[in-house]
Amino acid sequence: MGKRMFIEGNVAIAWGAATAGCQAFFGYPITPQNEITEWFAREFPKMGRIFVQTQSELGSINMLYGAAASGIRAITSSSSTGWSLMQETVSSMSNAALPCVIVNVQRGGPGGGTIRHAQQDYIQCTRGGGHGDYRDIVLAPASAQECCDLVQLAFYLADKYRNPVVVLSDGIIGRLRETIEVERIEFGPLPDKDWAAIGVARHKDGRRRIIHHGAGTLNPIPPFVGFLEKLNQKIQQMQESEVRYEGYQMEDAKLILVAYGYTSRVSKEAINMARTEGIRAGLIRLITAWPFPYQIIKEKAYQGCKFLVVEDCLGQMVDDVRFAVEGRAEVHLVSILDRHIPTDGGMILPDKVFSKIKEINE
Amino acid sequence: MGKRMFIEGNVAIAWGAATAGCQAFFGYPITPQNEITEWFAREFPKMGRIFVQTQSELGSINMLYGAAASGIRAITSSSSTGWSLMQETVSSMSNAALPCVIVNVQRGGPGGGTIRHAQQDYIQCTRGGGHGDYRDIVLAPASAQECCDLVQLAFYLADKYRNPVVVLSDGIIGRLRETIEVERIEFGPLPDKDWAAIGVARHKDGRRRIIHHGAGTLNPIPPFVGFLEKLNQKIQQMQESEVRYEGYQMEDAKLILVAYGYTSRVSKEAINMARTEGIRAGLIRLITAWPFPYQIIKEKAYQGCKFLVVEDCLGQMVDDVRFAVEGRAEVHLVSILDRHIPTDGGMILPDKVFSKIKEINE
Amino acid sequence: MGKRMFIEGNVAIAWGAATAGCQAFFGYPITPQNEITEWFAREFPKMGRIFVQTQSELGSINMLYGAAASGIRAITSSSSTGWSLMQETVSSMSNAALPCVIVNVQRGGPGGGTIRHAQQDYIQCTRGGGHGDYRDIVLAPASAQECCDLVQLAFYLADKYRNPVVVLSDGIIGRLRETIEVERIEFGPLPDKDWAAIGVARHKDGRRRIIHHGAGTLNPIPPFVGFLEKLNQKIQQMQESEVRYEGYQMEDAKLILVAYGYTSRVSKEAINMARTEGIRAGLIRLITAWPFPYQIIKEKAYQGCKFLVVEDCLGQMVDDVRFAVEGRAEVHLVSILDRHIPTDGGMILPDKVFSKIKEINE
Amino acid sequence: MGKRMFIEGNVAIAWGAATAGCQAFFGYPITPQNEITEWFAREFPKMGRIFVQTQSELGSINMLYGAAASGIRAITSSSSTGWSLMQETVSSMSNAALPCVIVNVQRGGPGGGTIRHAQQDYIQCTRGGGHGDYRDIVLAPASAQECCDLVQLAFYLADKYRNPVVVLSDGIIGRLRETIEVERIEFGPLPDKDWAAIGVARHKDGRRRIIHHGAGTLNPIPPFVGFLEKLNQKIQQMQESEVRYEGYQMEDAKLILVAYGYTSRVSKEAINMARTEGIRAGLIRLITAWPFPYQIIKEKAYQGCKFLVVEDCLGQMVDDVRFAVEGRAEVHLVSILDRHIPTDGGMILPDKVFSKIKEINE
Repeated sequence: MGKRMFIEGNVAIAWGAATAGCQAFFGYPITPQNEITEWFAREFPKMGRIFVQTQSELGSINMLYGAAASGIRAITSSSSTGWSLMQETVSSMSNAALPCVIVNVQRGGPGGGTIRHAQQDYIQCTRGGGHGDYRDIVLAPASAQECCDLVQLAFYLADKYRNPVVVLSDGIIGRLRETIEVERIEFGPLPDKDWAAIGVARHKDGRRRIIHHGAGTLNPIPPFVGFLEKLNQKIQQMQESEVRYEGYQMEDAKLILVAYGYTSRVSKEAINMARTEGIRAGLIRLITAWPFPYQIIKEKAYQGCKFLVVEDCLGQMVDDVRFAVEGRAEVHLVSILDRHIPTDGGMILPDKVFSKIKEINE
Repeated sequence: MGKRMFIEGNVAIAWGAATAGCQAFFGYPITPQNEITEWFAREFPKMGRIFVQTQSELGSINMLYGAAASGIRAITSSSSTGWSLMQETVSSMSNAALPCVIVNVQRGGPGGGTIRHAQQDYIQCTRGGGHGDYRDIVLAPASAQECCDLVQLAFYLADKYRNPVVVLSDGIIGRLRETIEVERIEFGPLPDKDWAAIGVARHKDGRRRIIHHGAGTLNPIPPFVGFLEKLNQKIQQMQESEVRYEGYQMEDAKLILVAYGYTSRVSKEAINMARTEGIRAGLIRLITAWPFPYQIIKEKAYQGCKFLVVEDCLGQMVDDVRFAVEGRAEVHLVSILDRHIPTDGGMILPDKVFSKIKEINE
Repeated sequence: MGKRMFIEGNVAIAWGAATAGCQAFFGYPITPQNEITEWFAREFPKMGRIFVQTQSELGSINMLYGAAASGIRAITSSSSTGWSLMQETVSSMSNAALPCVIVNVQRGGPGGGTIRHAQQDYIQCTRGGGHGDYRDIVLAPASAQECCDLVQLAFYLADKYRNPVVVLSDGIIGRLRETIEVERIEFGPLPDKDWAAIGVARHKDGRRRIIHHGAGTLNPIPPFVGFLEKLNQKIQQMQESEVRYEGYQMEDAKLILVAYGYTSRVSKEAINMARTEGIRAGLIRLITAWPFPYQIIKEKAYQGCKFLVVEDCLGQMVDDVRFAVEGRAEVHLVSILDRHIPTDGGMILPDKVFSKIKEINE
Repeated sequence: MGKRMFIEGNVAIAWGAATAGCQAFFGYPITPQNEITEWFAREFPKMGRIFVQTQSELGSINMLYGAAASGIRAITSSSSTGWSLMQETVSSMSNAALPCVIVNVQRGGPGGGTIRHAQQDYIQCTRGGGHGDYRDIVLAPASAQECCDLVQLAFYLADKYRNPVVVLSDGIIGRLRETIEVERIEFGPLPDKDWAAIGVARHKDGRRRIIHHGAGTLNPIPPFVGFLEKLNQKIQQMQESEVRYEGYQMEDAKLILVAYGYTSRVSKEAINMARTEGIRAGLIRLITAWPFPYQIIKEKAYQGCKFLVVEDCLGQMVDDVRFAVEGRAEVHLVSILDRHIPTDGGMILPDKVFSKIKEINE
């Protein structure tokens, strides 16, 4: 049985990582994820694990590269601008097939943006982020409990696919305090990390430990294309096997909200309001932002449902929904421009979503 | 009348920049764009203009930020990995509404990839690249002449919208030598750069010179959301006004190829082959990769056309075509996995595209 | 009772640090000190202590600054070029009165120099190294045992004076394997580190924890000069209290060799050869390179002794000897230009020193 | 005939560099040398020469390395902390025998110190500064005119010896405005820079252009020692040929003040006061801080003169004077601890020096 705690989402991420056996954290402070860095700074040394406050996010991601290459579970965490600084190396880690977990607790952008919450990095995270053809699985927690659980899943999927996995949180989820149960989750067996660079170049049976820099060769073909074929298979396999979402009030829903993170909670409240007025609204909440649940959305579109995307940006995920519906359904949007101003610091509130639901329903 | 030259696409980009009145280049060497850096190193000092070989691509983009803030036309150039390193600052320049031109001569990825050509940065470039809601216009030259002309257009559009503009080339276009005419192109009047930081804080009439860090405020609302509203309007306006593409053999085409850069030239050859066999193939060649010509593709899809995307990656632009056709048309793909191996260094060749055309046509 | 080991001087330094309660090592690999970095990488994590391989020596010294500010014992290690990179921050640590230990296992210079041993950093180390008026105590081990013991003394003196202490080794001492006894040495009581930045700004009695940036004020006087007065007192006190040297065959010596590190061992052998021929040679071996034993040398000069400095550089310490003798004694030099060439990799050998002794004695 | 100007010492340094044909400046802002950086930023582009504001002083010195390797005259400028950051590369430039000029307008230290004037970097500058056996000629201007003239001399000596030359100024000299004549000074013929890396590896006659990384070889002997022999010869030659000082009221002086930079001006005033009271005081003002005028001081000591060093630090140059006098003369010191407090910002004033003169004279 797990340990009950009343903690913030950010702290829950840290507990999840520790529970998953993560051995090393590398990070540089940035709001609104500082509780993560602080937790590791305080707790990891006591556990005999590694915490390094790096010179910058470039240092974080490159130290993560090194730690991952040694075969241990390792993590970094940042917020939007820091995540952007990491892109060259995230791309390199995907190339080298190194498992790791990267947390992005989104703040407002572009640029320095605001230190407050936002959901403006959806496209960047779900398309890899850096150059070249690669994808990272992106997990989007919507509660402190899920922060803890999904970061454990993230480590599992990273090891399973030998690929970076992103945990995409936001400033609201990160700082919302809830009672959770911290418990180690077993997801199944994993392949041996016999590729890990742990000081000896060969196994006893003569096989070489090798971190394959897939595309990193001056002889461009066939190793390069051969590598891309395998990368493509991995991407396909992730898309087929790893789509995760939560359906809420979906059985009879005619209007389907699509959201992730904090706006999915706002959306649930708005749906509850709508239901009291007899409006048949439901929610598809993304658990994986990538791969995206195109199939269920497409099916619902062909069944005549309408869609309402609720996301705290100018509209990014909405294009994935539009893609999925193939022109067969209305797709509406409550965006960052619909934030409640100014008393609450600019969240999208249930009222606004509920209004939109009623407007669509008319 | 312009000056006739027999030069590579990379060199044509440099001439285009010089012709457009660019005053400063900041860059770090990387294949396959080195001819650009070398040209500026050799020629700009003679012209009394600025060339700096920077410490890294981080230096390049931050010096570009400074130069742009002073109101001059300035440029940097790199290839895929270097472009990834620039993302935090590109996002910041969009935030600060600073006009600049960034050239990305794509090489293979992810990671170090190959030093050879590829087209694997399409999504990253067309979605801004960094964190936050912003977009850069992306111009994709397909000839040396266009390299020269589009970089001039890039400077014009950057100044018009006060926004970074990306020139998205590739290793084939960059090194293909063709006869071109270097001529200054006039695109129309531009607003005065009265915001430029040129040493005096105020104009004579008391107005302040100000580089507005739109989102960069600790008071998140309304300045932040207000800024995003304006940014959104700018993005909408760019989408409405700046879509550019070339139609080739489109009048009667039943099968429409979609491509940009070097694969658009390969596609034209394949179309010519197809036409000799009576196959009604045509081409939509992107000149702007963003904004994307969704409208024409959607129309053609609803008219019953089929589509074939030819791109030297695992499939990125193909999703924009799929988005546009709304499930009404077949969308096929010739990808990097269809490269001719190995005698030609791995290009996608017309033969392969022609075979695919015939296969679709059956 | 201590632990007996047969280890290299570099490894003995690491054992000494661990034995002294050092909690953190920050370093970047460089020959000929790599055994130090490797030891900490391998052993410190097992002990629950901190090892960080930094991005560069700039990272090392700045992380050392941070660790020292928290009150723990911390160390970095490098060789000549890396030591040069650290100078700005070493100066800052002296300014902030932060205790730390820095090991410099000298290699050849200037610049990249050679990866082999040398003694060319004497002046740089004994005069602080960076800008501003400050001095670090410099301890120069001449055996593996002393490597272990002097690094313990270094931590003690660093804490005693709240100042950086340098352990000045060389590539020969660092890699010479000898049997040593690793034993914790108690040097005496130390003041409480009540200034350490450990999360709470004030003590229970209201006193503030403060790291005094002595000179770091925009109001230059009197805080700046007041700070320098105290710094000057500290320097004076170190000069008066901390001079350490070993006399060898000094009772009747007429010719006094002066050396430190590996050349002091060479000098002892040469003295033994000389004694067999009846030449009354002796040795002053520096244990502290700073403060320097001016007094004893001056006395011996006034008593009519001659001097021979043996140092593996163009002549640096020799100027301290010349300073001390005040023109009253001959001062000779065996320098790096007298290295035995080339079969032994260029050490200064006893033969050469013995020849010089005989030459002076004639 | 030259151009008359009423300018600060810092600006005079810039004019001197421009007049000497300096083609490139690399620098990062720091008080109290900002007027230098600003001048180059403003004027060099107009002259078609190169100004780069670098990312840090590390960037400055490494860009200076590159520029010097191309054979042009190039300069950087900083103040104490920035100078410390440059030490690794200064050492490397000496190793590579690359001529360049580095200006250090001293501020207070150690660490961040104060932004005000000081003379606390004397030892660091006169002993090379970085690791390894090397020396830079150090020129110490005491007026705006000398700022202009000595920087010209610095370029000449740098080219003559293929070695870095330091111009050691201070915050008072740097900001004192005086009328000067800017005129090109011809110092004599210089060897051809046939080693410069200008794009072709060989001369027409087959000789290779080579920048000899003297010590930078993995084969330590004899190239390493052979290199050091030559370096030693160069150091000896500089010491023999390049000592420069100004004697003031020296003919009958019984008390000799020794000073450089701003304190030499203060010393002259004090001497004038002393002379009015019949005290036979004189001044040796260093023009080269290295090589140091040991010979004249030694002679005067043996003739029975007393000495008074006036330097705005805890006492650095005073040790060179003590060295020179060989215990034959009293050596007194007016130091930074004797600054006038606090109305004038803490200079050493003539009054204080005069008092000391009288005290010694009694």
